[in-house]
Amino acid sequence: MGEAAIDGRMMDGRAARLACRHGKVTGTTAGLAPGYVQGNLVILPREDAADFMRFAQANPKPCPIIGVSDVGNPNIPALGADLDIRTDIPGYRVWRDGECVAETGDVCEFWRDDLVSFVIGCSYSFEEALIEDGIEIRHITENRKVPMFRTNIATTPAGKFHGPLVVSMRPLKPADAIRAVQITSRYPAVHGAPVHMGLPAQIGIADVRTPDYGDAVSVHDDELPVFWACGVTPQAALVASKPAFAITHSPGSMLVTDLKNRQYAVI
Amino acid sequence: MGEAAIDGRMMDGRAARLACRHGKVTGTTAGLAPGYVQGNLVILPREDAADFMRFAQANPKPCPIIGVSDVGNPNIPALGADLDIRTDIPGYRVWRDGECVAETGDVCEFWRDDLVSFVIGCSYSFEEALIEDGIEIRHITENRKVPMFRTNIATTPAGKFHGPLVVSMRPLKPADAIRAVQITSRYPAVHGAPVHMGLPAQIGIADVRTPDYGDAVSVHDDELPVFWACGVTPQAALVASKPAFAITHSPGSMLVTDLKNRQYAVI
Repeated sequence: MGEAAIDGRMMDGRAARLACRHGKVTGTTAGLAPGYVQGNLVILPREDAADFMRFAQANPKPCPIIGVSDVGNPNIPALGADLDIRTDIPGYRVWRDGECVAETGDVCEFWRDDLVSFVIGCSYSFEEALIEDGIEIRHITENRKVPMFRTNIATTPAGKFHGPLVVSMRPLKPADAIRAVQITSRYPAVHGAPVHMGLPAQIGIADVRTPDYGDAVSVHDDELPVFWACGVTPQAALVASKPAFAITHSPGSMLVTDLKNRQYAVI
Repeated sequence: MGEAAIDGRMMDGRAARLACRHGKVTGTTAGLAPGYVQGNLVILPREDAADFMRFAQANPKPCPIIGVSDVGNPNIPALGADLDIRTDIPGYRVWRDGECVAETGDVCEFWRDDLVSFVIGCSYSFEEALIEDGIEIRHITENRKVPMFRTNIATTPAGKFHGPLVVSMRPLKPADAIRAVQITSRYPAVHGAPVHMGLPAQIGIADVRTPDYGDAVSVHDDELPVFWACGVTPQAALVASKPAFAITHSPGSMLVTDLKNRQYAVI
């Protein structure tokens, strides 16, 4: 968030989204509009959309779809009355043939009539529940983006899409890690329970202090690194699968919706 | 269980209890009467019973009480129609002033009219749910008693009772450990979710291969030791608190009841 110009904690989802649209938020959306669901974004041409939908369905932990647009329509009314997917995220990535070719604050110039937008649940939703339970979230305490890692766990391929599972990591004391499993299990639509904890080398992570996406955070000796499936997984799939064109959010810069996190608790 | 003289997997709770009563089961009751609740035992004179009840109430994770007898009555009809607490457990310990002074297969000769029996939930109940989910339980695979450890975590004292939390340990791969948190969270009356995992030194356990009670089991490099609060905790409290007289079960030799494990699932 840019230089504390605005206080995102006082906003509702729509106000936060408008602040992003108008350039008043330029970095991470963490902490913006508490209580409101934020989402990861993948935009693909219609010809790749069906494959991606199958990929998401086959990999529900990293890719829980919470909203899909009509073809060519930049609005997704189910997620926000006036939502414009081309402008409402602080940071986008534009991809060609599996390479990120641009990072930008709006994608109007890249828009096409054949594009379909997929919004995928985000761990910010369950982080709120963890914080309410008194659990410290290190990257929030240290004012960083959550650290994310490519793993050696393959996603289930579908059509042209394949690639490694990407995970986010939060260091927690063991008792908090156990409590975090309980709490996040209530939110299957926003990544749910962790996929791994405690032995990062097992999932191909050599050093929890050097993430592939986001920022490094402190990990203390009395803590276990706890790993959740991450909505950046589709970006690793873009790299591996090389579709001709795609747009995504920039990791950490999410779409703020009008939905409430509590709607996603199953019990 | 003695030399496979009987097949405990074919028994109901009552048949298993009678087999124990008649000396046909002499060691662990693990695997006996699948589906039926087994319990830890603490018997105390009436003068200490109220303190112990408060101790259990203050420490519900290690001491979830599932049955209490009337004073001097060796029956507990709520747990089994013909249950006789003096004979129905394969192995007892008799305690005087905090020392175990006898190990025996029945305690009729020690019975007194002022004794109150407390039956406490046992991890065998949730182990069944873990196994049904496809999770390997090492001490069962290796035909041992579950390894148990005194920790550096103090129980909440009540009246004369105090002492360290005792935990049972099961080594699990991280993904299984996460699933085990979910499954055992459904069973709060039989110890519920783990209390710790992955960093045994933090709770005062120097070596997970040298338990204080039960047997050692293999722990592999790709596994986390996962620790649950244990119904042997009252025995550590007897050592620390030194009441004049008590009877307990011998760790691993439990009371088999007529209740079903599934009755204890909260969701």
